[in-house]
Amino acid sequence: MSDSITLAHGSGGKLTRRLINDIFYKYFGNDLLLEGGDSAVFNIDNGKMAFTTDSYVISPIFFKGGNIGKLAVCGTVNDLTVSGACPKYLSCGFIIEEGLRLQELEMIAEAMAETAKEAGIVIVTGDTKVVQKGCADRIFINTAGIGMVQDYVNLSVKNIRAGDKVILSGTMGDHGTAILLERENLKVQSNILSDCAPLNSMIEPVLKKYTHAVRVMRDPTRGGVATALNELIAGTGLSITLKENFLPVREEVRGVCEMLGMNPMYMANEGKVLIIADSAQADNIVETMKENPYGKDAVIIGTVSDTFSDKVLLSTAAGGSRIIDMLTGDQLPRIC
Amino acid sequence: MSDSITLAHGSGGKLTRRLINDIFYKYFGNDLLLEGGDSAVFNIDNGKMAFTTDSYVISPIFFKGGNIGKLAVCGTVNDLTVSGACPKYLSCGFIIEEGLRLQELEMIAEAMAETAKEAGIVIVTGDTKVVQKGCADRIFINTAGIGMVQDYVNLSVKNIRAGDKVILSGTMGDHGTAILLERENLKVQSNILSDCAPLNSMIEPVLKKYTHAVRVMRDPTRGGVATALNELIAGTGLSITLKENFLPVREEVRGVCEMLGMNPMYMANEGKVLIIADSAQADNIVETMKENPYGKDAVIIGTVSDTFSDKVLLSTAAGGSRIIDMLTGDQLPRIC
Repeated sequence: MSDSITLAHGSGGKLTRRLINDIFYKYFGNDLLLEGGDSAVFNIDNGKMAFTTDSYVISPIFFKGGNIGKLAVCGTVNDLTVSGACPKYLSCGFIIEEGLRLQELEMIAEAMAETAKEAGIVIVTGDTKVVQKGCADRIFINTAGIGMVQDYVNLSVKNIRAGDKVILSGTMGDHGTAILLERENLKVQSNILSDCAPLNSMIEPVLKKYTHAVRVMRDPTRGGVATALNELIAGTGLSITLKENFLPVREEVRGVCEMLGMNPMYMANEGKVLIIADSAQADNIVETMKENPYGKDAVIIGTVSDTFSDKVLLSTAAGGSRIIDMLTGDQLPRIC
Repeated sequence: MSDSITLAHGSGGKLTRRLINDIFYKYFGNDLLLEGGDSAVFNIDNGKMAFTTDSYVISPIFFKGGNIGKLAVCGTVNDLTVSGACPKYLSCGFIIEEGLRLQELEMIAEAMAETAKEAGIVIVTGDTKVVQKGCADRIFINTAGIGMVQDYVNLSVKNIRAGDKVILSGTMGDHGTAILLERENLKVQSNILSDCAPLNSMIEPVLKKYTHAVRVMRDPTRGGVATALNELIAGTGLSITLKENFLPVREEVRGVCEMLGMNPMYMANEGKVLIIADSAQADNIVETMKENPYGKDAVIIGTVSDTFSDKVLLSTAAGGSRIIDMLTGDQLPRIC
């Protein structure tokens, strides 16, 4: 077997079969996947199901704190989780540029397998395509995920009320800043890691304990906390006021962002969640989140009010207040 | 709004939102999709579920008989269908190269919507990423699909028995040949269309009427009929003998393939199914298939026997017999 991916690996013929056996079955192997049918077929109980998909086109594909494979599992696990679902089954579609080294693909598959194991999700079906040199950028991965939503869960922006609190599970902008540093070759000595992580182990206990207090959740990925909160509040007729002093940002991240004229509120996160919750339980929810390593820096960052309609406001340290809009244009392409 | 896709359309910010509203919601709009959450959430009854995914990287993206959007829906619908499932929910992940015209994206979305409607599948969740010029080839689409398998369905290669018949739903190689002609710019006057079609309306009646007679099904896409049959028979200890005279190939397809040194048995199909069935019901199954336009040329092409182990043989018109192996190397890259 050559040490690089060739077009024949995507032909559907013998080399595709060998790639599947030698890499994907090796790392992802489970009874459903190994059936090798056109679809994975499994039994399901009646109830509410969540279904989501994301494609990952991040550049570079290896970065401090993870790689595109880890990201592709975390992202879909987190999308299911913030919908109130327990992640169950995952599909993976690989689009590979001719010439990717098999060793790199193997590292990516290994990270996917590890992360899936941590999240308790099973990779049950997949697909591999190969395109000519210059027709993709090394590797793109799509994952689609299925999860089951417990009957007691009812998350919706319609549940948001004036007085609710906005909780963030940790520091802003770690992923975006880590990728920026990798990419720009800035010669900045830095220990900033992507926060890329599967959040279901942190969020499930919160949902179980504080079922009716959690209004809605979102993972602030592309466009960061600012964009995610704007999306959540749009159409509710309510506004969110964030306290600048309360916004958690690592010193190193703040430094890099200042240097480059970036705002951490718009920087992508891949291991954080925003929770809008009943104020009566907000402190308890924060405490529960802190019990999990991924939530150790959880904090209340703002309050919902009915002062303005569909706006996110920042109450600054200096005592002023300004509107925080959605991201316009593209701060940093291919961040996930 | 500019008339081309820009990186900002993939930022997760305002332009992404506008693209979703103006194109995807416009064509795919349904209650589940319009909820706009991180996942689609729906009720499901207990039973057997099928889950599958495929990425589509075909070049060119528009071709006689379809486009990449139609293909992306048909392919996943067919993968569910040959697993014995009724297609229910579909996800779509778009990876778009900067510069694709919005009008082209709209044509693709329109074809997806039409095909999904025909197949009775609902597009409930999606994702859009944009990469820089030169980092993808116009557009790649991933679809993942969910379907429900009726209790009475039990498809498995383990059910194949010596004496079973091999049925093909129509002519071989139409898709592959149509794409080849588009691509090579051969100046051949041709009316060859891709056979790209959703097959559930043809297959569901067969499964319902001849439940226990159908052993297993497969759609012969990449690698064609030859590769699909090799995959099915591998590990069974049985062999398949195909009758060369019975293999249905359009005259035009045969002509083009001969001219280019291609074998239609290895050419991709996107609207055909192979069914291995109990010989006692094979003729009835063919008749049922013929009632549907997509099965009008259905025919028995061969027989399973225990003469050889894990082999596909071709019994030629001249009275000889030769082994038909899986595709080795890549006959035609990016056929789907």
